[in-house]
Amino acid sequence: MEAALTYARDHAEEFRQQLRDLLRIPSVSTSPESAGAVREAAEWLADNMKRAGFENVAVMPTDGHPVVYGDWLHAGDDVPTVLIYGHYDVQPAVKEDGWDQDPFHPVERDGKLYARGSTDDKGQMFIHVKAVESLLQTEGKLPVNVKLIVEGEEEIGSPNLNDFLVAHRDKLAADVCVISDTAILAEDQPSIIYALRGLVALELEVKGPSQDLHSGIFGGTVHNPLQALSEIIARLHDENGTITVPGFYDSVIPLSDQEREELKKTDSTADEWTRMTGAPRVWGESEFTIRERVGARPTLEVNGVIGGFTGQGIKTVLPAKATAKITCRLVADQDPEHIFDQIRAYIQQIAPPTVTVDVRRLKGSGHPALIDINTPAMQAAITAYEKGWGKVPVFMREGGSIPIVADFQRELDAPVILMGFGLNSDGAHGPNEHFTISMFHKGVDTVIHFLNEAAN
Amino acid sequence: MEAALTYARDHAEEFRQQLRDLLRIPSVSTSPESAGAVREAAEWLADNMKRAGFENVAVMPTDGHPVVYGDWLHAGDDVPTVLIYGHYDVQPAVKEDGWDQDPFHPVERDGKLYARGSTDDKGQMFIHVKAVESLLQTEGKLPVNVKLIVEGEEEIGSPNLNDFLVAHRDKLAADVCVISDTAILAEDQPSIIYALRGLVALELEVKGPSQDLHSGIFGGTVHNPLQALSEIIARLHDENGTITVPGFYDSVIPLSDQEREELKKTDSTADEWTRMTGAPRVWGESEFTIRERVGARPTLEVNGVIGGFTGQGIKTVLPAKATAKITCRLVADQDPEHIFDQIRAYIQQIAPPTVTVDVRRLKGSGHPALIDINTPAMQAAITAYEKGWGKVPVFMREGGSIPIVADFQRELDAPVILMGFGLNSDGAHGPNEHFTISMFHKGVDTVIHFLNEAAN
Repeated sequence: MEAALTYARDHAEEFRQQLRDLLRIPSVSTSPESAGAVREAAEWLADNMKRAGFENVAVMPTDGHPVVYGDWLHAGDDVPTVLIYGHYDVQPAVKEDGWDQDPFHPVERDGKLYARGSTDDKGQMFIHVKAVESLLQTEGKLPVNVKLIVEGEEEIGSPNLNDFLVAHRDKLAADVCVISDTAILAEDQPSIIYALRGLVALELEVKGPSQDLHSGIFGGTVHNPLQALSEIIARLHDENGTITVPGFYDSVIPLSDQEREELKKTDSTADEWTRMTGAPRVWGESEFTIRERVGARPTLEVNGVIGGFTGQGIKTVLPAKATAKITCRLVADQDPEHIFDQIRAYIQQIAPPTVTVDVRRLKGSGHPALIDINTPAMQAAITAYEKGWGKVPVFMREGGSIPIVADFQRELDAPVILMGFGLNSDGAHGPNEHFTISMFHKGVDTVIHFLNEAAN
Repeated sequence: MEAALTYARDHAEEFRQQLRDLLRIPSVSTSPESAGAVREAAEWLADNMKRAGFENVAVMPTDGHPVVYGDWLHAGDDVPTVLIYGHYDVQPAVKEDGWDQDPFHPVERDGKLYARGSTDDKGQMFIHVKAVESLLQTEGKLPVNVKLIVEGEEEIGSPNLNDFLVAHRDKLAADVCVISDTAILAEDQPSIIYALRGLVALELEVKGPSQDLHSGIFGGTVHNPLQALSEIIARLHDENGTITVPGFYDSVIPLSDQEREELKKTDSTADEWTRMTGAPRVWGESEFTIRERVGARPTLEVNGVIGGFTGQGIKTVLPAKATAKITCRLVADQDPEHIFDQIRAYIQQIAPPTVTVDVRRLKGSGHPALIDINTPAMQAAITAYEKGWGKVPVFMREGGSIPIVADFQRELDAPVILMGFGLNSDGAHGPNEHFTISMFHKGVDTVIHFLNEAAN
């Protein structure tokens, strides 16, 4: 194992060179025009995995973007099989969003690697490939059996992964699943996520006149769809930031007093939060701490609105329609389908009769997850972080969604370990996304340790 | 004069051929990338005016798009000088807005000419050029002195026309101004507008976090700018459709009982209005009739909103900012600058402290106008419509804005006659804009009659 750690150290620059090559491929899964790049990223990864020593490497088709699979299964029946999951697709990004550079031209600066996907999730996923390579290239074997699947649709809600798991249940059978797509608390404080929020996505379209109207001829006599949409959106939260959809919170498992005490240890102050986000003030449900709002409370977020004239200058138009994209983060035990039905019913109830509304569910949803922290695999992860980072990890709730965590738990009947190597300040989904270079290398060491610990 | 009418009839097809050539030039004044096309339209028009017999034709510079000028001033001092105004610029248009054809490929179908600018205002403006041509080519002279100015910035609020009028006050001196940029009541019922609404335009930007945030990491703790924008927009009207900005209605001249009686004659029913617009129901201030809401009441209209992710699929982003474009239609005696100040103050007052708001005035504003209907020139217009259309025109208030009407009245100290030839159903500013072909030709006849009547 020391040889593997030495190999990783000696090949640090080469590992990062390879990662930069992968980051240059704009594998934006939500954009139909990027389908070629998504495919290219899958092929690149498959090739890299073969060179690393993975066997049975294949770019496996789904109804959407492919899954890259590889394994090494010669450790014997008396040690566990670890299934590692990551994703090679990324969020959309263009320089105009506020990047200091082209988001697909990776740049290393001040100990950080800047590029779309650097932390979410190409960089974190690649840690596993390089840990396996370090072990195989030095010891010729792994301490446990390893299967790696890397999908290309995480950023659009993994619409085809559940079917993939079901179709390949035997091939993917494992004793434990490891996912690296989360942040740790701080650069010097590893943490393990034991709760994730789910997701449901919808589009709300408000239609008024049959076509755009001249605001001079018709203004004041026809309900403006942009105004009606605003009126509806304004009624989805009360002044406290609480969601007003009837029944929305019915299935939320309340936090225990003990859990609230535990979460207080990692809470942020309002000052820290405004400094981190740049927002003038903190917002949201006043009866919950910031950490609780993020990790233990569901949200309803307007991700985008468009309607009417949005170009340069003015256009005195009364638009025919206006559209909002909305996603909700869900917590256990909220059900995405049931929540969608509740929101749709409420919007239809409050929509004024002067417009028509259409509430459509969008692809990309997932159940929230709560993970049992009392398992041997979790103990292996704790030890691995301790060795890789020099510090015992803390347990946390995560506000983001990895919709497939619940799927893995259900379909493969295996515990899931969320082994994160990113930071919340990495700018995932925003401009200037980056990954701290030292954390990439500590991650490789930690995974080498984890695979060893998992054999015990 | 009979010769001129005959000439116009004999050259009908040629007139329309020329108009279609002009409509093919996409002179969208609000788009910086269309500046070349705007210039091309001005040059085309100047050339056509020269061929028609106008003298001193010139494409005159302004700080923005140029004004095309031409005159014929040999009718003598004992007859009036008529200044005719029109505009050769058009609203933006792309086929994707819902057009049945490319908006800049004119098509004649079912007695209508379809193209952006066909009715607003290239077609209406061109009527005057062809009426003058018909008189000059047959009689070698005009019954009155005529000056024609055609500007290229009406659709962006004529930001440079007032300066142009002031700079060329002597050159433009006239006894009466004629503007053809309005609709008449029906194809068989001419009408003359005696009131126009003014305009003020602004942009409202709501900013929250310093950059787009991951909704999973920060959702529920930061006020979403799209939500805050919606909350602000929702508070700009009450449930009756009345604008809630304090003091907004203070300067509105109330309608007299007599005027309300007159306007009732041309009111529309709710059924007619929903059929015309396609909206499910009529909306707006319940204490005013539809005609009054359009002609005698100010409005606040959201023309466009954009924020966050609006592409295909989903993006779980909490956007850094959201922007709305807003225009108000004003009625006499509301002042655009004062109204802007009131709106800005109100928005800043109601904006939540969890976001920052920026309210910027946009170029493109104008004073509302009320026109004296007891003038000799107005009598000439009534007679001309009667001869051209076979029916006495009715007097109406118009909901649209021709910001320069007030400018002409003030700067040139001349009465303004609004001689419209379009219909409200022409689709001005929307897709499938069109001009009824028979009305184009009746318009040429009416202007020939008007120039004769104006000499008396």
